[in-house]
Amino acid sequence: MRAERDTSLLLVIDIQSRLAPHVAGHRQLIHRADALLAAADLLRIPKLLTEHCPAQIGPVIEPMRSRFAGGEIFEKTSFGAADHPEFVDRIRRTGRTNIVVAGMEAHVCVMQTVLGLRGHGFEVVVVADAVGSREARQLDRELALRRMEAGGCALAGTETVLFEWTGSGADPHFRAILSIVKAL
Amino acid sequence: MRAERDTSLLLVIDIQSRLAPHVAGHRQLIHRADALLAAADLLRIPKLLTEHCPAQIGPVIEPMRSRFAGGEIFEKTSFGAADHPEFVDRIRRTGRTNIVVAGMEAHVCVMQTVLGLRGHGFEVVVVADAVGSREARQLDRELALRRMEAGGCALAGTETVLFEWTGSGADPHFRAILSIVKAL
Amino acid sequence: MRAERDTSLLLVIDIQSRLAPHVAGHRQLIHRADALLAAADLLRIPKLLTEHCPAQIGPVIEPMRSRFAGGEIFEKTSFGAADHPEFVDRIRRTGRTNIVVAGMEAHVCVMQTVLGLRGHGFEVVVVADAVGSREARQLDRELALRRMEAGGCALAGTETVLFEWTGSGADPHFRAILSIVKAL
Amino acid sequence: MRAERDTSLLLVIDIQSRLAPHVAGHRQLIHRADALLAAADLLRIPKLLTEHCPAQIGPVIEPMRSRFAGGEIFEKTSFGAADHPEFVDRIRRTGRTNIVVAGMEAHVCVMQTVLGLRGHGFEVVVVADAVGSREARQLDRELALRRMEAGGCALAGTETVLFEWTGSGADPHFRAILSIVKAL
Repeated sequence: MRAERDTSLLLVIDIQSRLAPHVAGHRQLIHRADALLAAADLLRIPKLLTEHCPAQIGPVIEPMRSRFAGGEIFEKTSFGAADHPEFVDRIRRTGRTNIVVAGMEAHVCVMQTVLGLRGHGFEVVVVADAVGSREARQLDRELALRRMEAGGCALAGTETVLFEWTGSGADPHFRAILSIVKAL
Repeated sequence: MRAERDTSLLLVIDIQSRLAPHVAGHRQLIHRADALLAAADLLRIPKLLTEHCPAQIGPVIEPMRSRFAGGEIFEKTSFGAADHPEFVDRIRRTGRTNIVVAGMEAHVCVMQTVLGLRGHGFEVVVVADAVGSREARQLDRELALRRMEAGGCALAGTETVLFEWTGSGADPHFRAILSIVKAL
Repeated sequence: MRAERDTSLLLVIDIQSRLAPHVAGHRQLIHRADALLAAADLLRIPKLLTEHCPAQIGPVIEPMRSRFAGGEIFEKTSFGAADHPEFVDRIRRTGRTNIVVAGMEAHVCVMQTVLGLRGHGFEVVVVADAVGSREARQLDRELALRRMEAGGCALAGTETVLFEWTGSGADPHFRAILSIVKAL
Repeated sequence: MRAERDTSLLLVIDIQSRLAPHVAGHRQLIHRADALLAAADLLRIPKLLTEHCPAQIGPVIEPMRSRFAGGEIFEKTSFGAADHPEFVDRIRRTGRTNIVVAGMEAHVCVMQTVLGLRGHGFEVVVVADAVGSREARQLDRELALRRMEAGGCALAGTETVLFEWTGSGADPHFRAILSIVKAL
């Protein structure tokens, strides 16, 4: 299974103001999520953002949140976004079948969302260097990655996904993607 | 496959007085098993405890043993509890299909029990940071984890399981689970 | 899949005089193979030994070779013993379906034999701490283990297998196996 | 699945003059690819070479490129060679079904080509110590290896493949292969 431009949707999970600072490597994680967002916009890949109980853990960080239109932001209470039927409906309406996932925490909301999406029949690519957990939960994170992999998800690095979306050195967007890659 | 509150049963294997002190990281392992037990009680998830040849390796440690009612304690002689038909019957009578496992030793009684449960058709989540082996057998432990994973079990950290059981930030038990998590 | 006493056959591959000294950790590997042999004899598990081109790399080391009867020693020229039809016949005649494998080199004769056995429909348990490769080929060894695992083999430590074969703390051989385990 | 002499084709991907020097361990990688090429020629295993946008990243390095006849060199613009139907046709015409892959970058052109080949039904052996990525992308490389493995490819070391192709200590080419192995 490959992350293809015409079938992918980029899903960014819960990068929120009171959670993000506690996640190991959060600066790089956010930088990579931003790179994926820039590429998605360039290549016209649809995107969604989840926001978990913002009254408790704050809104999605800026300027990331402002990159999304209102209809692209999904507020949730379940850790697994796909446990909300409206969320699954919203993905279904895009017609996209391959969900590329970044965000936090890898072993809680990311994993529960991803396993839920698999249960609904979606292909999932977990961008492993763009999903994070708190420093004390790195074993939980590593096990969650293995578990998502065992559940049929692909694990990939950010650059790997960017080149999958691009597909060809002859693509008109190749130069622009290359400059995103070089800034990783 | 996810550890869900309504389908899970918590199984704690052989944390006994003459074995536990020899297991690497046994204090943390016991602390995590206790956290799982507290959450199971809170969320009304049924639980079982196995005790292997207590005349030889001592009873299950206290106060853990006292948390279980008589009918929740299963004394066994086979390393694999599921090799005793009465044990499988006892699980079957709960109606639970997803067995969440903690205890010791990971590569002996835990692994043999887990592979036996898989053979009987149960789903199994192995709580990887709450199953241990003696210091000299850490390779056996790691291989047993891989083997249980290859056999279709999920591997997960304790916190990961607690948040799967909780499911939602809006759950009435969320605050209580959060304080268990914070004490991990 | 479990290594059971009634279905297992112990297969020891190519522990030969001019090869063994070059294999990383060969002393421990030989000690573990000897422990498996002692347990197999105790539990009446049949065993086979392969010897690869002994004119070139010497006979199987002593006293290991003398533990085997003439009909239990198979001389081969193919790296994969199961590429010799007579070898497969010899296993078939034992009625055993679960082949427990130790020996060397992990990434050459062990792997080719094991993949061949899988192709003939046998279950295989690779005793990971009792198969070795030359020091410079530890990556080849690790990849061969992963590949055998991906091919449906179980990987297990020596102690893990000994307790699988024993099955129960009430087994009449339990004490004898325990003293083999303690000497590992 | 095994790399057999009669079904294998050796595919070398994009070892080009402006890319190779940036790849971690490129000297050893090239040395191993050369060893595979020498063995392929000796054992009459067909081979193919890809060259990605040579105007941009330079031709395949010499003397490697000169080992290939014109019809064995495939110039491509897609990262995944198998996204070019003529490339798949060219492999199909050889009648070979097991593609043994070396080259660079592991997480871009190698991975996209390999996943494409899998999609077309070929068996693939990825020579893990003969595929590389840039130093800063070692996590992408490791994840790409796992992903190809999860996609049904075998991962193997160079020496492992050489002994699979050879098959037997009695093969007339055994001595010649052994000297290639000794120079690894």
